[in-house]
Amino acid sequence: MNFSIKNIGECRIPSPLLDRISDEGFNYISETNRIYYDIYTENQKPDKDQSFELAGPRKMIHFNPTEVRSAIVTCGGLCPGLNNVIRSIVLESYHIYGSKSILGFKYGYGGLKPDAVVKPIELSPENVRDIHKVGGTMLGSSRGGTEDMEKLVDTLEKMKINILYALGGDGTLKGAHTIAEIAMKRGLDLAVVGVPKTIDNDISYIQRSFGFESAFTKAVESISAAHVEAEGAQNGIGLVKLMGRHSGYIAAHATLAMNDVNFIFIPEVPFDMEGENGFLIHLQKRLKDRGHAVICVAEGAGQELLKKEGADVMKDASGNVMLDDIGIFMKNSISRYFKELGIEISMKYIDPSYIIRSTLANANDSIYCALLGQYAVHAAMAGKTDMVVGQWNNFFTHVPIELAISRRKKMDPNSRVWHNVLQATGQPFVMVNR
Amino acid sequence: MNFSIKNIGECRIPSPLLDRISDEGFNYISETNRIYYDIYTENQKPDKDQSFELAGPRKMIHFNPTEVRSAIVTCGGLCPGLNNVIRSIVLESYHIYGSKSILGFKYGYGGLKPDAVVKPIELSPENVRDIHKVGGTMLGSSRGGTEDMEKLVDTLEKMKINILYALGGDGTLKGAHTIAEIAMKRGLDLAVVGVPKTIDNDISYIQRSFGFESAFTKAVESISAAHVEAEGAQNGIGLVKLMGRHSGYIAAHATLAMNDVNFIFIPEVPFDMEGENGFLIHLQKRLKDRGHAVICVAEGAGQELLKKEGADVMKDASGNVMLDDIGIFMKNSISRYFKELGIEISMKYIDPSYIIRSTLANANDSIYCALLGQYAVHAAMAGKTDMVVGQWNNFFTHVPIELAISRRKKMDPNSRVWHNVLQATGQPFVMVNR
Amino acid sequence: MNFSIKNIGECRIPSPLLDRISDEGFNYISETNRIYYDIYTENQKPDKDQSFELAGPRKMIHFNPTEVRSAIVTCGGLCPGLNNVIRSIVLESYHIYGSKSILGFKYGYGGLKPDAVVKPIELSPENVRDIHKVGGTMLGSSRGGTEDMEKLVDTLEKMKINILYALGGDGTLKGAHTIAEIAMKRGLDLAVVGVPKTIDNDISYIQRSFGFESAFTKAVESISAAHVEAEGAQNGIGLVKLMGRHSGYIAAHATLAMNDVNFIFIPEVPFDMEGENGFLIHLQKRLKDRGHAVICVAEGAGQELLKKEGADVMKDASGNVMLDDIGIFMKNSISRYFKELGIEISMKYIDPSYIIRSTLANANDSIYCALLGQYAVHAAMAGKTDMVVGQWNNFFTHVPIELAISRRKKMDPNSRVWHNVLQATGQPFVMVNR
Amino acid sequence: MNFSIKNIGECRIPSPLLDRISDEGFNYISETNRIYYDIYTENQKPDKDQSFELAGPRKMIHFNPTEVRSAIVTCGGLCPGLNNVIRSIVLESYHIYGSKSILGFKYGYGGLKPDAVVKPIELSPENVRDIHKVGGTMLGSSRGGTEDMEKLVDTLEKMKINILYALGGDGTLKGAHTIAEIAMKRGLDLAVVGVPKTIDNDISYIQRSFGFESAFTKAVESISAAHVEAEGAQNGIGLVKLMGRHSGYIAAHATLAMNDVNFIFIPEVPFDMEGENGFLIHLQKRLKDRGHAVICVAEGAGQELLKKEGADVMKDASGNVMLDDIGIFMKNSISRYFKELGIEISMKYIDPSYIIRSTLANANDSIYCALLGQYAVHAAMAGKTDMVVGQWNNFFTHVPIELAISRRKKMDPNSRVWHNVLQATGQPFVMVNR
Repeated sequence: MNFSIKNIGECRIPSPLLDRISDEGFNYISETNRIYYDIYTENQKPDKDQSFELAGPRKMIHFNPTEVRSAIVTCGGLCPGLNNVIRSIVLESYHIYGSKSILGFKYGYGGLKPDAVVKPIELSPENVRDIHKVGGTMLGSSRGGTEDMEKLVDTLEKMKINILYALGGDGTLKGAHTIAEIAMKRGLDLAVVGVPKTIDNDISYIQRSFGFESAFTKAVESISAAHVEAEGAQNGIGLVKLMGRHSGYIAAHATLAMNDVNFIFIPEVPFDMEGENGFLIHLQKRLKDRGHAVICVAEGAGQELLKKEGADVMKDASGNVMLDDIGIFMKNSISRYFKELGIEISMKYIDPSYIIRSTLANANDSIYCALLGQYAVHAAMAGKTDMVVGQWNNFFTHVPIELAISRRKKMDPNSRVWHNVLQATGQPFVMVNR
Repeated sequence: MNFSIKNIGECRIPSPLLDRISDEGFNYISETNRIYYDIYTENQKPDKDQSFELAGPRKMIHFNPTEVRSAIVTCGGLCPGLNNVIRSIVLESYHIYGSKSILGFKYGYGGLKPDAVVKPIELSPENVRDIHKVGGTMLGSSRGGTEDMEKLVDTLEKMKINILYALGGDGTLKGAHTIAEIAMKRGLDLAVVGVPKTIDNDISYIQRSFGFESAFTKAVESISAAHVEAEGAQNGIGLVKLMGRHSGYIAAHATLAMNDVNFIFIPEVPFDMEGENGFLIHLQKRLKDRGHAVICVAEGAGQELLKKEGADVMKDASGNVMLDDIGIFMKNSISRYFKELGIEISMKYIDPSYIIRSTLANANDSIYCALLGQYAVHAAMAGKTDMVVGQWNNFFTHVPIELAISRRKKMDPNSRVWHNVLQATGQPFVMVNR
Repeated sequence: MNFSIKNIGECRIPSPLLDRISDEGFNYISETNRIYYDIYTENQKPDKDQSFELAGPRKMIHFNPTEVRSAIVTCGGLCPGLNNVIRSIVLESYHIYGSKSILGFKYGYGGLKPDAVVKPIELSPENVRDIHKVGGTMLGSSRGGTEDMEKLVDTLEKMKINILYALGGDGTLKGAHTIAEIAMKRGLDLAVVGVPKTIDNDISYIQRSFGFESAFTKAVESISAAHVEAEGAQNGIGLVKLMGRHSGYIAAHATLAMNDVNFIFIPEVPFDMEGENGFLIHLQKRLKDRGHAVICVAEGAGQELLKKEGADVMKDASGNVMLDDIGIFMKNSISRYFKELGIEISMKYIDPSYIIRSTLANANDSIYCALLGQYAVHAAMAGKTDMVVGQWNNFFTHVPIELAISRRKKMDPNSRVWHNVLQATGQPFVMVNR
Repeated sequence: MNFSIKNIGECRIPSPLLDRISDEGFNYISETNRIYYDIYTENQKPDKDQSFELAGPRKMIHFNPTEVRSAIVTCGGLCPGLNNVIRSIVLESYHIYGSKSILGFKYGYGGLKPDAVVKPIELSPENVRDIHKVGGTMLGSSRGGTEDMEKLVDTLEKMKINILYALGGDGTLKGAHTIAEIAMKRGLDLAVVGVPKTIDNDISYIQRSFGFESAFTKAVESISAAHVEAEGAQNGIGLVKLMGRHSGYIAAHATLAMNDVNFIFIPEVPFDMEGENGFLIHLQKRLKDRGHAVICVAEGAGQELLKKEGADVMKDASGNVMLDDIGIFMKNSISRYFKELGIEISMKYIDPSYIIRSTLANANDSIYCALLGQYAVHAAMAGKTDMVVGQWNNFFTHVPIELAISRRKKMDPNSRVWHNVLQATGQPFVMVNR
């Protein structure tokens, strides 16, 4: 894999930070400041080619801050902290670099289309001051619209944008990569810097995504509700569906945080419903022994079961595979199973969905978002392009977009984390029939 | 209407409170302490027959606290504060009256059935100490099972129960009334005292029901989420379904508390979807003017619309009419409407359901629950029966069960409160075609 | 006492509400709509002279909404909900009455002084939109400066203000009364309508003051902290000082809400520290029996003890008697007592102070504030003056300022509420030496 | 520095985990699994001697789980998450290792004294089930008593304890180190495993301490209160004192999280109050420009200023230097300064103290505590001793106690983090007179 970062051009302009911050200690970062990707000592000698460039302010930068024209766009589903990142980018540009031309395109890449109805807005410290106190994104967002990237670059070129900050997930970053490539091909002085947004924490080469902690913190509440409901009825079952299309991090962390879950299902770990080692028989046993059960299922779990049932697979506007609803599927399967057995149960189904993703960034995520925004500006001013700002082993890093989207981060069923989760639930390590 | 309270027998035993609390001021209540139901001055002279008996400790009581055997049962759906009321009844009986025999029947009236699988548990200060720190009910609950009341009284008689505290809603109170009547007919020394539980705040002759404030407080969060989602998308629509089978108090209060709702629908106020003054055209107008909309619908709203669609009406185990899902109905209607018009919208549907009813009692409800429990014990010890503890104009009162369930409290579409709600939303006063 | 409300002049202008709200049911209020102050049935016939005029919109009003010039001022210490009331007054005036001239004087009555440095600001729906989402008051506040009321009226006259909304406590309302009297004497067309602000809930003839519930809800948290600390140490003592200069309502409600307090002290109930029935000996006993104790003291409690110690009494800028710090006094007394006995204790002192009063209005207070603001506008538009908007037995009422400030509401040590509090703590009913 | 971990003896017993968890992937850890301390690529070749042993279950362990006798002790001030760690140790021992003899010594090392009044308690899944839902520590805690370590080991020897889990800070870990050394000298089969507790996050070689995030999250609330108060008055000043005896991490993170602080002071960065570049003159300027200011000071800041004032330095029972109160000092200095200038200010001083440290662990800390407890049990069962469980670059590690307490972690005034903090406040980079 390629860990090296592209620059849009040379860095000949002294950073305005030099006026205030001395060139001592670790105040400025250079391209030789890198950290190893793999830090196990077993590997005879760590590989410098497998190392991340550190994020941070450069002494010499590419763009003249007083002339550069920046733009921000937010895409995809809501995620806690979007406003915090927007705010941080604007404040850093304005107050630290003295760069005051920042546009906000509305409603995702759609706002860059030539025929976009809603015009971009000027962003300033004034109009971003309190946005971190509400959830969502002040710029609005949208899925889809990534097809016609050449036209989006037309808009950027026409509006003389030099820096595009793209906040979004997999699809958005793919788009950002394409924009960066087109811009390079056209010879535009345009840097594209992404801030990866994935509430599911599933971008690889990045250890933590903003909003993830706020999301699983909020999810804990639904699990508690399910637990209260389950305990409040004879053969009470609380069933919670949480986000997680391709990875079960939110479900796993919410489970670990409260320890009220008895069965958890995530996309990475297949399971059977029926059969002698299927989930239903274990659920029945749990009800018999304890009188109630709490189940947590990530939305992407058990897709192979749904397919068996003959469900169609569709794609949404962003090209994401649309998942059949595993929550409803499990709810119906459980009902049917116990009905056939003549066992009365009391099931409560909770789908918190938008309550979670629209929540505020908590304190820790707020700090993280603020720093991501600042590092994004440092990178962009230095002319870095086709990259995202990430974190690795507590260092903020620059990651090529291609590397970041090369594979999705998933939970390893053989990892200690997953074992910790299983241990917290007490469920069998495997629920698949042989 | 009859406001007078029945007694199971004479009060010849001095209250143990007399040892500690002097007989001065308002420390003890007698049957002549009553407050007017109607306090308008227009009515020439207030009617003493239309007055509530005040709740509170009596100097002379009916039961010998050291001998009396009490029992508690919780029925129906969960509601914030159930555990608080249980705890208060137990602590008051134990510590204040020195009455230490208190059983908790499990899972509602079902736990009183002769063949109940789960046996009642002894309640003591020890095992109720921290139950107010979790939601739900430590006794479990259930709907249904109210048919065979004679058999339930058999159980009470066999177990020599003298006081039955019944915590529940309409159906539960009807059951309690029947139990009280059967007990009287049999000449049992059994007092039945209810604590009305209705998260919807819809019991008449009682101005406030416990848990209601906690419920609408929690509901506000879903409305905020809907608002964030609506603002975060082009033609964004946030649609929230809240509790309220027959009355819209939760929806109305949640709307008043945050002012983010643009359209509210409650059971008491009919509306049309289609047509020139129907909701859909007003929604379309709002989207055109403001780009987004937040809609709040109580689960019992628009039932006549669902019937038109040919939906069947069923009853659940408690005999409650099962409502077709107005939330899903509106979601689908809105989608179809704008699809036909070729207008792209982004709708987010939120159904917080169990997250709300399983929540903790907030501070104010906690106090209210504690007092309701205490007043219930005062009433029961004095041998009052076939009654519930309520509140009227800031006084705790005794209300005959028959009076309490004589009619459901509903929001008057001509009331100032409803006008305040409409004013907060800005929606048309009427959305019905002529 | 005089319950009748003054009007600044006749009501000859039809309310603009008539265009939208029909004159049916209870949509409009007239001066004959009154409710009894005393609703006990014992009192042979309720006294119409002792009844409150109901608040609400009048059909005919005094001011022409499109011409009237209003002003708002907030005085005294912060209280949850101030911004909500301001916002409500502005929105009601604008959107409902179509009255768009509303000034906000800054920093209390000081902002009305001829030499006020900070000029008043124009209030509009735009700049009050989100103020209910932060604590405090957007207008700022101040104590003191109430001496020279004639000059303040000069300012109002010069600026042609017709309505002054005064949000504040005792001192503020006295000032508002004086302003109203001066205005009447001068023949100004100026209505003065107060919204009583007392976080301590101690204004008489008004059953609930806004922000009070939010305050005691927040106070519960400090008590929980004290409880955790007390239990976490050998002979652990958690001592919490809460607001309540002259009444103990916050302390009492916080105590009732959580049940973690073992000793509570309020201004209304005297107590001794030393002596055979003094607090210290009871505390010693509790530590011996249970190993820890939680104490809650209202700031105004035990002032007579402080005086004994020779403390001086001073007045602050508003003329409030400045209280010696009973919290510090108790902390020191307890330390000394156990030190002399050679008993090691671990005491943690918590003074949440400003954390409480700067908190947000909770959902229930938010509704109350919104309604208070609306009723204040209804009253003012009808030319009512020298009055405050209050609540009595669930009705919004008009109360003459003189009546409202005629005596301070205090907790009656013989009341059921206080007995409930004592019962919740388990402390002796009396801790005074004979 | 020495990174190698001592073992109390050989590991000849197969782990009971082997029955359930296969020996594949990363399920078990061996001593050769290490990670580099320093991961910069500049350093020619990373030093294996400077690497941490990874935490995790071993295939072969030292103690026979069914025979081993464990004990837990919690020392020093409260910290969010203590109960979570206790609970995790107990559940891991019981359910995963099948080890059921676990004592909890009460009130810190004092509970191990031969004359301890309060006897240790048996810990079981039953009595730790819900302790993570309250703050504090179920075992109680205390400072001091670390002098006579030989006697404490006598107790451990007499009670045949094989594993001592010590949860505490610097002083506690020093004590644990001494106990481990004495035990080794005596040839006892006693492993001492620490879980470092420092709400200030100031233990070196460990990147994150449990409870820290919960603490600064809670601290944000006090800063918001200070901000509301400051904005609510003319020349309003909100002054907040936060924890941080020797390091300013809590203050810094709370400042970064909300961005409402204008001046921050931490122990690591000296400052002057007076003089032309002192704080007071900058505060005056801020008041002139903006009308209000929020100040956040860590309790250990400015100690050199206090010494100048002639304050005595004392030590508390644990030998900690007792700090003069910088909060009160600044409050008084500010008051005096503006009084002398004749400028009226309105200052509100907030000291949340125990409200912060007694708070619950938030979701993220809860997970961290659960894992720390599990890893502590893995280490102890393998016979590791004289070590603590820590975290480094997202790996759980074993750290020799001597290494962990070799130097205190402090914030580097030349670090990017501190620059980010300064940037967030807008205060001058240096406030010292030359």
